Amino acid sequence: MERHLDRIWLVTALDEARAGLAEGGVPIGAALYGADGTLWGRGRNRRVQDGDPSAHAETAAFRAAGRQRSYRGTTMVTTLSPCWYCSGLVRQFGISRVVIGEAVTFHGGHDWLAEHGVEVVVLDDPECVALMREFTARNPALWNEDIGA
Amino acid sequence: MERHLDRIWLVTALDEARAGLAEGGVPIGAALYGADGTLWGRGRNRRVQDGDPSAHAETAAFRAAGRQRSYRGTTMVTTLSPCWYCSGLVRQFGISRVVIGEAVTFHGGHDWLAEHGVEVVVLDDPECVALMREFTARNPALWNEDIGA
Repeated sequence: MERHLDRIWLVTALDEARAGLAEGGVPIGAALYGADGTLWGRGRNRRVQDGDPSAHAETAAFRAAGRQRSYRGTTMVTTLSPCWYCSGLVRQFGISRVVIGEAVTFHGGHDWLAEHGVEVVVLDDPECVALMREFTARNPALWNEDIGA
Repeated sequence: MERHLDRIWLVTALDEARAGLAEGGVPIGAALYGADGTLWGRGRNRRVQDGDPSAHAETAAFRAAGRQRSYRGTTMVTTLSPCWYCSGLVRQFGISRVVIGEAVTFHGGHDWLAEHGVEVVVLDDPECVALMREFTARNPALWNEDIGA
């Protein structure tokens, strides 16, 4: 269920995505919030910037949060439906909620997460959709590389 | 089906795992081999060494391989059954084979990978088992942290 802060938190992820676009990267951003609403970590896709294919946005935010004993009650906010890699991250570490900007331009593993007890909220945010539509139209090869397609 | 080179490739992953143990880290290693048998990347769990919770062995090997256009025909060799995070990596990027040292001390997502068309080989290697048995007995909290348990 959508919570009051979800759309505010999405702005953090969107800021990361826009910064990635400005750097010539894949414009996907994410942020990991603790159970008490504090920002644990934020990040963006860095495939182009760092030449790092593992640096998907959710992984970057998770990494930025450093070592943690438990992810109970945490929320991963991401501009785009998480791929299998990042969905696996959420499931393995027991991240409780995933808030997704949009799942129109890419449909990852979020249904699977919901089946396995993760609370999934899809916000259908038009800015997130527009960002990816424009990016994928202009950079189809880079986008396919980023999702192994 | 096990191939001739699988146990030789496992030695690369085991070397990484042992190096991790010597550094005080989680002793899991992995290596990614191209379709032609060349070593694309190798790595080990670096949670302790780098304070990076995303640095599971398979992710480290994948990262070390850099940007690639296709993972068709590649083999990920790992000393331990891959967790959901690293299983998601294999599925998302279309890594064709996963060769696993052991799945006794931890059973991750390799059955799910096999269901989704990945060729999975479990070698039941006694050295891999011994390494993890000793490590988890001595460092239960660190191990639980590494798998979000």
